[in-house]
Amino acid sequence: MLTPPSQDARNAARDRLAALAIPTGALGRLGDLAVWWAAVRGEATPAPAANVRAVVFAGDHGVAAHGVSAYPAAVTGAMVRAFVTGVAGVAVLARQHDVALRVYDLGVDGDFPDLDPEIGAFKIRRGSAPIHLTDGMTADEARRAVDAGAQIAAREIEAGADLLIGGDMGIGDTTTAAVLTAAVLGLPAEEVVGRGTGIDDAALKVKTEVIAAAIDRARDRAADPLDLLAAVGSPDIAAQAGFISAAAQAGVPVLLDGAIATAAALVAERLTPGVTPWLAAGHRSTEGAQWHALKDLGLEPLLDLGMRLGEGSGAVAAVPLVRSAALLLAQIARLDEIL
Amino acid sequence: MLTPPSQDARNAARDRLAALAIPTGALGRLGDLAVWWAAVRGEATPAPAANVRAVVFAGDHGVAAHGVSAYPAAVTGAMVRAFVTGVAGVAVLARQHDVALRVYDLGVDGDFPDLDPEIGAFKIRRGSAPIHLTDGMTADEARRAVDAGAQIAAREIEAGADLLIGGDMGIGDTTTAAVLTAAVLGLPAEEVVGRGTGIDDAALKVKTEVIAAAIDRARDRAADPLDLLAAVGSPDIAAQAGFISAAAQAGVPVLLDGAIATAAALVAERLTPGVTPWLAAGHRSTEGAQWHALKDLGLEPLLDLGMRLGEGSGAVAAVPLVRSAALLLAQIARLDEIL
Repeated sequence: MLTPPSQDARNAARDRLAALAIPTGALGRLGDLAVWWAAVRGEATPAPAANVRAVVFAGDHGVAAHGVSAYPAAVTGAMVRAFVTGVAGVAVLARQHDVALRVYDLGVDGDFPDLDPEIGAFKIRRGSAPIHLTDGMTADEARRAVDAGAQIAAREIEAGADLLIGGDMGIGDTTTAAVLTAAVLGLPAEEVVGRGTGIDDAALKVKTEVIAAAIDRARDRAADPLDLLAAVGSPDIAAQAGFISAAAQAGVPVLLDGAIATAAALVAERLTPGVTPWLAAGHRSTEGAQWHALKDLGLEPLLDLGMRLGEGSGAVAAVPLVRSAALLLAQIARLDEIL
Repeated sequence: MLTPPSQDARNAARDRLAALAIPTGALGRLGDLAVWWAAVRGEATPAPAANVRAVVFAGDHGVAAHGVSAYPAAVTGAMVRAFVTGVAGVAVLARQHDVALRVYDLGVDGDFPDLDPEIGAFKIRRGSAPIHLTDGMTADEARRAVDAGAQIAAREIEAGADLLIGGDMGIGDTTTAAVLTAAVLGLPAEEVVGRGTGIDDAALKVKTEVIAAAIDRARDRAADPLDLLAAVGSPDIAAQAGFISAAAQAGVPVLLDGAIATAAALVAERLTPGVTPWLAAGHRSTEGAQWHALKDLGLEPLLDLGMRLGEGSGAVAAVPLVRSAALLLAQIARLDEIL
């Protein structure tokens, strides 16, 4: 088990919250969030997150060639460039909220010779294999992807991160996330399938069949999280699981994005039990897999706006609320100070 | 009818949204919000709100002496000082989001000789009368309170507001707001009563009876909104209705807070039909009256965090989302620009 967040700081924050010049519980979930922030920062009234750092893990998914997405795999590469040039949704939100944004190509089926080579510094392979037919990657690749995520987290922590966010970009990624979620939680395809980028009913039927076949393949592989990642994972999602796991081990909190981040968190909890108390959920996505995963993790998302952009955008959009919680706890007067 | 928001700008924003390098509908409610922002600003890709101005309308409520609240009326005055000194919740959030905050005493049962006299520049009376027994104020007071709200809106618009927020502070205010909502919508007390600052079951029973008696008193007064405000309103809520009405008439959008702001919006729509398209809802409060009022207005709140602090805090907490919507619409690349 990891070192848990500070119980002393949690208690002190609860005491202060109860003494503020507000009705009991009037901050709603921002009050709970303030107490969580105190616990993970180890202080009764910690400063708001100043150095928030988001990483987009990019990778193609072999299932994308099998009718599960409304978009061709070529979009993944185009979006990597959009993150770099700042014209993707998560880049816009990161600028707004002073969040540092980085993108790594873990498994894109293409190269970026004109971009900073650092983007490919942790590349594992060109696309995962179609996971309804065969293993998504080898055991060695899965291990290296998890390790890559841990190294990426270490870089961001070295840069002073006080809150980390992981996002994902990859056509087909909600299929892989749904399969991982179903395999960990023992759910059928119908419970985890979603419309991803917005597929129609016919494609939804195909996607459900692909997910069901992949769940079948994963049936005897779920006990070992690394083996599960090899069986039905992908380099990008494996890396995000390693990223979350390493952040929690270093005592740095993580604000989860949608279906992919939450699936990665489920796997991270199996890789490193005790990760979950270091996590908060940024938003509720439109994917059923995420709702099941959040319930299992015991996390309630902050935003519920029907967003399904991916890229970490839901979590970055929620950053002001995490900061609000800290500020409200620290700066509202106590009742005995104003009466 | 008022001049409606720009249909041309709305259409242009919808066209741009559909052309962005994102799946259809992937921004969820932020996409709808961006289109609304374009319409109320009259531009296809307007800048995000830069000059957001919030006003807290303070006033005591005669019903507070009749067991409807967990707090004594003396708290209202103490909180006015907390807004001025910046240690109230809404003041903390306003600093965080660069929102200008002002408080006006419309009807506090007390004076503030040591504070800036401007705070009392629009004072109507010392507390409303207990509305389950008698009219909350005179017809002349109701008219002057609405006019005060309009003058306050004019001051903020003169100061360059591109988005306005109204908040309320007054022990007993959720009782008055519930009665106004019920009277406008023809609802029974049970549908609009809420726990306000957090009353217990016994007080909730008393509050429900007080609300029911006031609804009875308002039965024949709802046709004329000014008469309704005199019958069961208060200077603070009447002023917020005038504030919302004047903002919409000037073409300045308003982000609504919780139960009190939404009741004021219901009345404003009756004072000045056509107000509603200029409004967005910042958050869902825990008061049933607000849910009914939002449904009638056709507004879906942005945040749903169980907040019940009042003061405008739920709307100010949502300001970053309104800005996000504008930024995403303007700055995400079009699909044809990245492929």
